[in-house]
Order: sequence, then structure tokens, then C-alpha cells
Amino acid sequence: MTEHPLSWLAGHAERRRAAGLRRVLRARRPVEEVLDLAGNDYLGLSRDPRVIEGGVAALRAWGAGATGSRLVTGTTALHAELEDELAGFCGYSTALVFSSGYAANLGVLTALSGPDALIVSDAANHASLVDACRLSRARIAVVPHNSVGAVDAVLRARTETRALVVTDSVGSVDGDHAPVAELHRVARARGALLIVDEAHGLGVCGPGGRGLLAAAGLAGSDDVVATVTLSKALGSQGGAVLGPAAVTEHLVDTARSFIFDTGLAPASAGAALAALRVLAAEPSLPAAALSVAGEIADAAGVTMPKSAVVSVVLGEPLATVEAAARCLELGLRVGCFRPPSVPVGTSRLRLTARASLTGEDLDRVRMVLAEVLGSVGAVRS
Amino acid sequence: MTEHPLSWLAGHAERRRAAGLRRVLRARRPVEEVLDLAGNDYLGLSRDPRVIEGGVAALRAWGAGATGSRLVTGTTALHAELEDELAGFCGYSTALVFSSGYAANLGVLTALSGPDALIVSDAANHASLVDACRLSRARIAVVPHNSVGAVDAVLRARTETRALVVTDSVGSVDGDHAPVAELHRVARARGALLIVDEAHGLGVCGPGGRGLLAAAGLAGSDDVVATVTLSKALGSQGGAVLGPAAVTEHLVDTARSFIFDTGLAPASAGAALAALRVLAAEPSLPAAALSVAGEIADAAGVTMPKSAVVSVVLGEPLATVEAAARCLELGLRVGCFRPPSVPVGTSRLRLTARASLTGEDLDRVRMVLAEVLGSVGAVRS
Repeated sequence: MTEHPLSWLAGHAERRRAAGLRRVLRARRPVEEVLDLAGNDYLGLSRDPRVIEGGVAALRAWGAGATGSRLVTGTTALHAELEDELAGFCGYSTALVFSSGYAANLGVLTALSGPDALIVSDAANHASLVDACRLSRARIAVVPHNSVGAVDAVLRARTETRALVVTDSVGSVDGDHAPVAELHRVARARGALLIVDEAHGLGVCGPGGRGLLAAAGLAGSDDVVATVTLSKALGSQGGAVLGPAAVTEHLVDTARSFIFDTGLAPASAGAALAALRVLAAEPSLPAAALSVAGEIADAAGVTMPKSAVVSVVLGEPLATVEAAARCLELGLRVGCFRPPSVPVGTSRLRLTARASLTGEDLDRVRMVLAEVLGSVGAVRS
Repeated sequence: MTEHPLSWLAGHAERRRAAGLRRVLRARRPVEEVLDLAGNDYLGLSRDPRVIEGGVAALRAWGAGATGSRLVTGTTALHAELEDELAGFCGYSTALVFSSGYAANLGVLTALSGPDALIVSDAANHASLVDACRLSRARIAVVPHNSVGAVDAVLRARTETRALVVTDSVGSVDGDHAPVAELHRVARARGALLIVDEAHGLGVCGPGGRGLLAAAGLAGSDDVVATVTLSKALGSQGGAVLGPAAVTEHLVDTARSFIFDTGLAPASAGAALAALRVLAAEPSLPAAALSVAGEIADAAGVTMPKSAVVSVVLGEPLATVEAAARCLELGLRVGCFRPPSVPVGTSRLRLTARASLTGEDLDRVRMVLAEVLGSVGAVRS
């Protein structure tokens, strides 16, 4: 008798349950009593009427879908406009929009590397960068988080001509900053390309929210490529690669996650473009998000954040799930991060700032966190 | 002197240019004179007012973005409603919506396989399935297109306990049908799971557009998993996995392209749901698309298609590019497929049917194709 091909799933599910690693999708309602500190809508633009109307206008003008790959029918004048303005705002020659940040990371890493290349990848890199490395067929060297010396040593010792150094600018779970200037110095000295994911930097860090590379004077350098997402500070969906024209043209020709994917929906492109214009017109928004993050960190008793992400390490998955559930009972939705999203033993609450939070909202945050974190004997990061 | 890390791009670009493999993004305008036979909007729903208003209502109710991973804040009641109705319409217990069909394929193949598994992959599978295989770390056996015997031989000879058989139901470029009933018989006999990508089947093939698995009585089988896209017949963006609850629950816990991606934008979820309801209410739409495809095939002098995709093989890339350009000059946009999208030597025009084309539109198709294909000495498939 042949075993059923899915019989193994039950045992795996049971092991995850015992380890506190089961996940259940909880559907939000359109209007909620609960205060959200779990999303990545750092500037509150997802609900901004200007952004919503940008999406509505695009839907009416272009229809609900891009109808095909960007190479076939999926490029509208709206996509081109978004790419021009995004590149211009962030300080790069060109931009290429993908259907997600995950797809942008897959595309840029696979198309710019290959079996004859080396990718030096930070140990804390986001899963999309890790998956991109796996898919690239390059040799992957994982280096300790933010260790410029380790990057240099690996680059120096390499046998490959082509090398890429890849990092998040702002950690997705910790919110810490990568030493992008030092990484660039080392990469340039060793003839390597620096690729930086600004997913959590855009709209929050750097001058006017232009990201950490712009803060370091590196935006637009001819040996730097950035990726961004349209789904966090810009409140929409999608991702983009920013860099020299030679890079984006190469991606158009060769990036499989670009070629073999339907283009970003017009509504999302239109909303992202409207959000970008709000960000450009209101350069104080990023500072407002950072200020709110500071208040949240103060309430949680952790060190001041350098981004919109506040991380409160609690250790074990079950205790973390319980703390998040207690926050929710008290009216505060917070992120609950467990392996494989974070290393084993560092399960944590992840609280995110939103520029639009009021003083009253922050009072509630303080009350709830005092109640929940005071009672769990937290090991705070 | 260290070489610049991007200096190799120019030579690669030049080689692609010489081979007729450069690609340029051409931005569409919102209203066009040209008749589109290149997109995948098979039922014309992307521009359907009911679908657009579904997207608009979702944007207004939920905002422009999902604001986070489906596991954190990215699941709305709208996503849950879409999943319920999609599963119900197609005949499966559960559905899980991803931000794209590409992401759905990556998610299901990586999460259900692994280093101890075998994936038997059809040689003509879509790039997203190929990339998913690469990312899965499973052993990959590529078998000749639609060869049930080869699948059986590979399954029989395997040493792995777990095995998956993976195919498109309808070829993305050829529009041909996979022998899903025979594949399922073989897979079941050998204890393997059958995974079928219905990207080009949903909305066009099978009873009421429910796909080829439904036509074979296999939708909802406990050893069958389907993936679909929301960006073709449903005219929106996104993808989904359809299957037993144990599978979708496993994906929620472990599929990296689900966990580490922002949820599908509400506008796209709302538009897809509205399109699904149109399809359910108008079961004659798929037949209308197939009828138009037959007219196009007749005009091109190729055999009758079994889907909305009509393939006209011309051979070399440059001749194909020229034929597509000539069609466009004459007011007809057609797809132009070259390597790596199709095998070397089989560059082709890809013409797609749309249920909403009029008799007048089809007259234009006939005139243009007679003019262009009569003059290129086409080797027709």
C-alpha cells in the first residue's frame, strides 16, 4: 500500500504546534477599535485620501489589471511615470517596478550574479534576499550582521571576478542601520557591487525619507543598486530596483521575476505614485514617524530606535504569542515574530510607528505596554 | 586597477542585441487605437465596470495597501472572502491568496518539497515553476512535455518517499492541454502529489471556466493541488493555491513567499472577487473566449486552439520581432516570444483571444494577419 502523498503534513503541523510555531490568519475588519502597531504603513499613507484617490483614478483609467508581463502589455504610461518619479526622488538614474519587493530582490540578485559570481550576504538579511541568493546559483558567503571586516575578508579572498555585497539598509525586525558607507568603501576597493534593500529605509530614514544610501551620499553611485518596496511607507503594493540604466536594462532583458510575472496592477502603481508625491511635498513626515517610534520605545523600555521599527525581545515563542495576545485584548495589535522570521531564542514583539498616531493613541500604547511588559519579566533588546 | 563591477553588462547587452534578444518596455496609453491580442485578459474583465467598481470599493474600504504580511496585518475580511469564494467556485476545500501567481508557485513547491523530495517537472513548465523547482532544493527530474510514460518511469525509479508531479494545465505560450487525468492516475499509483498550474485554464477551460482539473473531475481530490492566477481571466493581480486545508495551513506556516511578502493590495483582491462573481454569473464567457480564439487561429492558418492562446511559430527571433512590429503598424498588438521564454529556434507570435472582441475586431485581425503572415513565409505550428 502506497502512503498518501500528504500524510506527512499532520506530523509536521503537530511539531510546529508543540513548539508554539503554528500560525493562524486573522482577518481584519475595515474599521477597528484596536490600535495597529503591527503594520508597515509607517507614514499612514495607505489610508490617506490622496493616495486612495490616486489608486481609484488609475483603476478607472487603466482597468483592474496590467493584463500581462511588463514586456508584453503590462507597461502602462503610469508605470513609466512612477519609475521616473521614484528614481528622481530617490536620486538614481532609473527605476524598474516589480509586482513586489520580494520579486524585485529575486530579480536583481539572480540577474546580476550567476554561477561565476560571489554574493556576500549579511546574516540578518530579509528572507527575500536569502531566497534570491539561493536562486542565483552564485557562491553565497554569509557574514556576521553588519561586520564590514568580514565582508572585506571574504571579498579579498575570493576567486570570482564578479562579486556582490547585499544587505538591508534598515533591519526589518530590529530596525537597526547597516554601515552602508563602510560597506561601499570596502566593496568599491574590492571591485564589488553594493546592493542595498531600502524596504524599511524609504520614507523613514535619510534626507526627506530618501533612505540610508542617500544619507551616505551614495544614491546614484555607479556601483550601487538599491531595492525598495511600495508597500510600506508608500502604503501600496509592489517593489522597485533603483540604479544605473545599464542595470535596469539588463533586468528588463534577463530578470525572470520581472519577465515572467504580470505587471503591477494600475491601482497599486497609481496609489504608490500619489504616496510618493505626498512624501515629496511633506518632508517632515519621516521625522514624525521617527518621533512616534521614540515614544513607543520609551513606553516599552527599550533603546531609542533609528527607524520606525521597535523590537522587544522576549525569548521563547509561546511567551511571545501570549504577550501579543494580551496586547490585543487590551486594544493594541503588535507584531509577534518567531522562528523562522527571527533566530531561535529571540522571539519578540515588533512594534511599528505610524506618523499619524495621536497623543491619545500614544497614551494607550503606554498603558498597554506597561500592563503587558511589566508582567512578563521581559528580556528587552 | 580593479575592474568596475558592472563593466560586464555592456558586452552581455551587445550579444543579446546581435541575437535579436534585446527587450524594450513600451508604455501603453490609457485609450488606444490599436487592437490588443497580446494580453491575458481573456474575458475582457480587466476593463469591466463591475470589476473596476469592485476594486474601487475595496480601495475606499481598506486603503491602498495590505500594510503587512498576510500573517501580521495583511489579511483583511476581503482576502478571506475572496479565498472562500475562489475555493468554492473552483471546487476545492480551501484557497490561499498570494501577491502573484509567481509567488504562489514558489510557495507551494518549496513548502511541499525539500531536499528529501523529488519533483517531476514538465519540460515546458512556466518559468515560475522552474524557478520554484530551483528554489526547492528537491531533486528535479525534467520530463518531456506531456509524457505520462516518462513521469511514471521517473516516479517508479525514485528513492525518495515524497514526490510531486508538476505541470501547467494549459501551456502559457502554446495553449495546449496537459493530460491531467492520466498524470493523476500515474501520480496516485506511485504515491505522488499532483500540482497543476491553472493560470491559463481558469476562466477559459473546463466547466464554466473552472479549469482542466475540474473538467477531469479532479478538482478537490485529496492528492491534487492547483495554483491559479488572478491576473489573467480574472483581470486583476495576484495568485492562489487551491487544495486541502492541510496544504493551505502548511503554507501559512512555512511558505516563505507567503510569509515574507506583503499581502495582495485590497484593490486587486476586490477586483478579482468581482471578476469571479461575473464569471460565476455568466458561464458562457469561457466559450465566447474559445470561439474568438478559433477565429484568430483560422485567420492565422494554424490548428484550432483548445484555449485562449494561439501560437504562430516563425523560428528566428529577428523575423519574429519584425512580424510583430508589422502587425503593430497595421493596428494589431501581438505577443512576440523569443528565448528564454520559448526554446531556441521556436520564436513565435502569441495571439490571445478576448471574449469581448467584436465581429469588426475580428475582421481587422483577419486583414492584418493575411498581410503579415502571407509575407513572412511562416512555418506555422
